[in-house]
Amino acid sequence: MSGRLDELKTLLGEIHDLERVTSLLSWDQETLMPADAAAGRAEMRATVVGITHERVVSDELGRLLEALRSEEEALPYDSDDASLIRVARRDHEKARRVPSELRAELSRAGSLGLGAWLEARERLDFELLRPHLERQLELKHRYVECFDHDGDPYDVLLDDFEPELTTAEAEAVLDRLKQELVPLLEAMADADGDEPLAGPFPLDRQDAFARSLLVRLGVDPRSWRLDGSEHPFAASPGIADIRLTTHFYEEHLGGLFACLHEFGHGLYERQVSPSLFRTPLATGASSALHESQSRMWENLVGRSRAFWSHVYPELRDAFPAELGHVDLGRFFRAVNRVRPSLIRVDADEITYNLHIVLRFELERELLAGRLEVRDLPDAFGERMVSYLGLEPPDVRRSVLQDMHWADATFGYFPTYSLGNVIAAQLWESAREALPDLDDQIEAGDFEPLREWLREHVHRHGRKYSAAEVVERATGRQIEVGPYVRYLTEKFRALYG
Amino acid sequence: MSGRLDELKTLLGEIHDLERVTSLLSWDQETLMPADAAAGRAEMRATVVGITHERVVSDELGRLLEALRSEEEALPYDSDDASLIRVARRDHEKARRVPSELRAELSRAGSLGLGAWLEARERLDFELLRPHLERQLELKHRYVECFDHDGDPYDVLLDDFEPELTTAEAEAVLDRLKQELVPLLEAMADADGDEPLAGPFPLDRQDAFARSLLVRLGVDPRSWRLDGSEHPFAASPGIADIRLTTHFYEEHLGGLFACLHEFGHGLYERQVSPSLFRTPLATGASSALHESQSRMWENLVGRSRAFWSHVYPELRDAFPAELGHVDLGRFFRAVNRVRPSLIRVDADEITYNLHIVLRFELERELLAGRLEVRDLPDAFGERMVSYLGLEPPDVRRSVLQDMHWADATFGYFPTYSLGNVIAAQLWESAREALPDLDDQIEAGDFEPLREWLREHVHRHGRKYSAAEVVERATGRQIEVGPYVRYLTEKFRALYG
Repeated sequence: MSGRLDELKTLLGEIHDLERVTSLLSWDQETLMPADAAAGRAEMRATVVGITHERVVSDELGRLLEALRSEEEALPYDSDDASLIRVARRDHEKARRVPSELRAELSRAGSLGLGAWLEARERLDFELLRPHLERQLELKHRYVECFDHDGDPYDVLLDDFEPELTTAEAEAVLDRLKQELVPLLEAMADADGDEPLAGPFPLDRQDAFARSLLVRLGVDPRSWRLDGSEHPFAASPGIADIRLTTHFYEEHLGGLFACLHEFGHGLYERQVSPSLFRTPLATGASSALHESQSRMWENLVGRSRAFWSHVYPELRDAFPAELGHVDLGRFFRAVNRVRPSLIRVDADEITYNLHIVLRFELERELLAGRLEVRDLPDAFGERMVSYLGLEPPDVRRSVLQDMHWADATFGYFPTYSLGNVIAAQLWESAREALPDLDDQIEAGDFEPLREWLREHVHRHGRKYSAAEVVERATGRQIEVGPYVRYLTEKFRALYG
Repeated sequence: MSGRLDELKTLLGEIHDLERVTSLLSWDQETLMPADAAAGRAEMRATVVGITHERVVSDELGRLLEALRSEEEALPYDSDDASLIRVARRDHEKARRVPSELRAELSRAGSLGLGAWLEARERLDFELLRPHLERQLELKHRYVECFDHDGDPYDVLLDDFEPELTTAEAEAVLDRLKQELVPLLEAMADADGDEPLAGPFPLDRQDAFARSLLVRLGVDPRSWRLDGSEHPFAASPGIADIRLTTHFYEEHLGGLFACLHEFGHGLYERQVSPSLFRTPLATGASSALHESQSRMWENLVGRSRAFWSHVYPELRDAFPAELGHVDLGRFFRAVNRVRPSLIRVDADEITYNLHIVLRFELERELLAGRLEVRDLPDAFGERMVSYLGLEPPDVRRSVLQDMHWADATFGYFPTYSLGNVIAAQLWESAREALPDLDDQIEAGDFEPLREWLREHVHRHGRKYSAAEVVERATGRQIEVGPYVRYLTEKFRALYG
């Protein structure tokens, strides 16, 4: 018994190592790599990804997983070993269903689409991207067919990011969000918000402040780094090697909130149980659950009054000329300013979800053939008017703003809002378990929250689906109520 | 014909990619990686190195190389394709001769030895290292036996770093060096040298100066980087991805000379012909040839009067308080100060080679069984007295100063002095071809020298052995004369 299991762990350990290598190759490329190295790096990456895939789909691994069925059944569902066999089999079977040629075509279509997207944005011309999206939808249909799935074809795409969640479940969440948030937004429309903060905020001081803040949150330089990149992200090329990136701008403090966001991702990876090290379980369970962690630190912690009561005096000391005349209340309102805007990634906590609803609806319609790619720009613009009351002035600030469809990523968008929803649900449970949570945060003590998250979310890694983790942590299925309560209470207090 | 060759290039391209991945893993580990990531990184590295080795020794590659024999013979020796088949076969056959277990044992003994070395240095106790060296010599004998070699067993070890060079050839060079340099050093012993420069030299200004200097030498930020690390080195995780590291100290300007040294290594890798990209030929030919390039830029360029005539005014501007009172002549003498010293890596241009002769002799005696490991510390100390006139006060400044033997690297030392010798020989030829070389350097124009090196050394990559490259570039076999002439002339002028 243990012989075969050891053999499995050896194979999976090597696959894990190769995946971490790919993570480092990407991190390096986005942060430090000299520009002209791109062509050579693409070859290195393709070689490592190819070898990894060969190993994931190998007959050797398949036979071993088959032989381990009885061992798996003899073990408790929630044991590390049963979970390892179960998840590895799921990965193996999924990967084997997709022929290598189709996988290569999808990857190629994604790269070409990304190039076309950059050019289409540059020239404000959706037509340059259109044939690529059409091709990708065709390939996505072929991809869906690989799975003999008789439900909604969107299920198959969603499963790549949100294992075991159905489209119907995601739809129920997003519909409810739309119902709740549109009226909430209307009710706030007449209220006068504060103006945004005026910069410029010198970059070196933002950087120094962010580093000191991250250390206070729980970043240990022995296993974390912070670097710069065009778009902020978090990578974990090792369980004790967590790398956050951010991008500071002089005009605003967005790079600071990006640090809080990426810290949430990084902490999840950092607090996976060491017993899962070098297995496919040693990472986050799903995109939505990951996003719940980043949004929790960015918003539920990082845009809370308790947090800024603790942190703001130091921020003001770091920027005396820029913030000396701004009191805590004004600052707090400024970083929680709600106003419909054109760009998803700059949106506030409420309107953000409407951007997601819009995209989720459109990509489902595209996949179902109810919407033609050529009609996508108009459909996008119309829904911006209907959900956000804004008419996009050009395609760059409309259908061309995200790279997700261009690079062949369909099915990802709903995980952003699901993440918000899960964050609030976990937060309610954390507050029940830690009645002093607000006081702890106000005193700069983040350890109780970190430990609660470790115990109830992080340590499990990929042992359970996101829905299972949420149910274990909160005793309930994923539900929208806590998030709506959180938003309503917070913004009622702010906007009256 | 071309079908099989394409197949070979595909296999070798993947091996190349994996080797570059290993290079990036090491570079990252030495420069940026958080400390606690070391254990995970060791696993990643072992996995990639293991997969690379599997592919180098694979039957598939062996059959292909066998099938390509007739094509190879039909092609000119110096064609890219014939060279590719020839060098790949050599690598494949060498790698296959060593059983995996022995390779693993050598690697393990190296890691253990390195750990023991650190502790032995700490405690000033050679006995902690002794059993490891004994074990390594035993393993090295087993390694040598893999090759059915009937000459000097040291040939086999030397071949790993200096392909196709025999011990007898290396010995002839080092013997001649000893004969020439000991009297030269004695003649200089009575001369009064200048005192070294007094710091402190603020680190940020050293860094800024080094970066601007490197750009002038030929570093393009689109394909090069400079970072910090404990020990300076150069890595090339891509043909357009050259990464130098250095270590600046406030007390002296050694970190600046390390930049020049590593620039020489980097330029060699950068100027390999793009036609060799993604093949095993796309790197330097040997350790000595590589070292010839680094020592050329560090010493023949970087410690020349022409170079400092150009550069010194700016250095003095960067350190007005530290160097304002030091004129060019005094500075030039200070960076060319000759004085026997205990530590190899800090040695001047002349005594450096005596450190090497000493180590080369001792490791040959160890391998031949003429010297026991337990007698090594005494033998080391005695030879320090005899060649350098210095009695080491402890083992750390004597037999424990280098990590080469501790980490199972035997056969490397002679390549350092061979590099010095080759550098001077190439330099004489470059000066013949570029009669204005000194003036060009004094005018800050390094392009003619770079181009001469590209044409005569760098572009060939591993197509030829070091001896072949030297003969093609200079018309002569490797010879000591130019180096002795260079040292004699330079230091006669300096010391009278």
